[in-house]
Amino acid sequence: MANTKNVSKAVVNRLPRYYRTLRELADQGIGRISSKELALQMDLTASQIRQDLSCFGGFGQQGYGYSVDKLIVELERILGVAGSQRAILLGVGNLGRALLRNFDFSYCGVRPIAAFDTAQTVVGSDFRGIHVHALQELEEYCERERPDIAVLCVPADKAMDMAQRLVKNGIRGIWNFSNVSMKEDVLGVPVQDVHFSDSLMTLCYRMKDTDPFDEINEIE
Amino acid sequence: MANTKNVSKAVVNRLPRYYRTLRELADQGIGRISSKELALQMDLTASQIRQDLSCFGGFGQQGYGYSVDKLIVELERILGVAGSQRAILLGVGNLGRALLRNFDFSYCGVRPIAAFDTAQTVVGSDFRGIHVHALQELEEYCERERPDIAVLCVPADKAMDMAQRLVKNGIRGIWNFSNVSMKEDVLGVPVQDVHFSDSLMTLCYRMKDTDPFDEINEIE
Repeated sequence: MANTKNVSKAVVNRLPRYYRTLRELADQGIGRISSKELALQMDLTASQIRQDLSCFGGFGQQGYGYSVDKLIVELERILGVAGSQRAILLGVGNLGRALLRNFDFSYCGVRPIAAFDTAQTVVGSDFRGIHVHALQELEEYCERERPDIAVLCVPADKAMDMAQRLVKNGIRGIWNFSNVSMKEDVLGVPVQDVHFSDSLMTLCYRMKDTDPFDEINEIE
Repeated sequence: MANTKNVSKAVVNRLPRYYRTLRELADQGIGRISSKELALQMDLTASQIRQDLSCFGGFGQQGYGYSVDKLIVELERILGVAGSQRAILLGVGNLGRALLRNFDFSYCGVRPIAAFDTAQTVVGSDFRGIHVHALQELEEYCERERPDIAVLCVPADKAMDMAQRLVKNGIRGIWNFSNVSMKEDVLGVPVQDVHFSDSLMTLCYRMKDTDPFDEINEIE
């Protein structure tokens, strides 16, 4: 297996989608899949699939296809989702509650262990077994439990201060729903932003009646 | 401007990120930017930036850079976000409320005009001026108001039926938070899924202490 050092960022960004698609196939009881079928599922070309999978040690065999289960295990290892990271959630408003109640953290190998808020109305309550602590307990809690990930659902104007406080308390990665861009080189840990607007814009783009590239041609 | 017909899907997928970055620059009062500076902001190479922007008519000038405002206007046109699409939201649980209360639809050129739910506790209430109707009023409402986009926040087991009902009522695009994959060829309209898990997985990947590609080399 060659070229593994040269895996491009574009391939890395596609890994979660490969993982998701393969998990769906496994759920449907499908054990093997050809690059052609996988290409159809993922809206890529078969040769792109073959190239991507070879980058991370794809187990395809001519005329036989890929083993869905083996690819899933390999992707879990590469993505680090089999690592059982522990997460705390900051800000138990509507979005925080939606995540605690409905999001399948375990799918990503992550376990939520606590939530924090300042509002008396929510501190002390539980969501699917996750207890909401008062924010002032954060330092003591982090020292004792050493969580890995912080899920940041606080208002925009509090996001950066909170992120810095979390990093000071040993948090190693931030899943950022706060709609504020954070400089990773200032914080010193990876920050993954969730930008709802990107997907709504892509939808609007795809809903355009006219071929957008015809329009582009009119620019000049 | 050549090659506009050959704009790759990868470029199209980057358009919202270009738009977001340029809007942030404009907010900071920055009027021009070089491909090198923009590359730093977006974690791409300068030559990739120049190539991408040339695909959609970038206005760069040697030694002068790009006009931020002009690029924003162009991107709005290409993305179709200047089109004032009208959206209804289905399912006013925690996630639906979070979107109605906090998400900036106007940033994407979308205007939410109504929400629908079945729960008596929420029907009749308002969120930032958006009224929650009983679901049984959906048909009559759609015939009268002709909304373009449906924001789907219903539980997974109700998602597909609801999507088909919406398309029957003239909805032209679905922004899907239901965590259920929908076949666009069955529905006949674009569906844009929001997969929280993709970004959490990418975070886990980036938090791995060891170089993942060293590990990949051990596979064989």
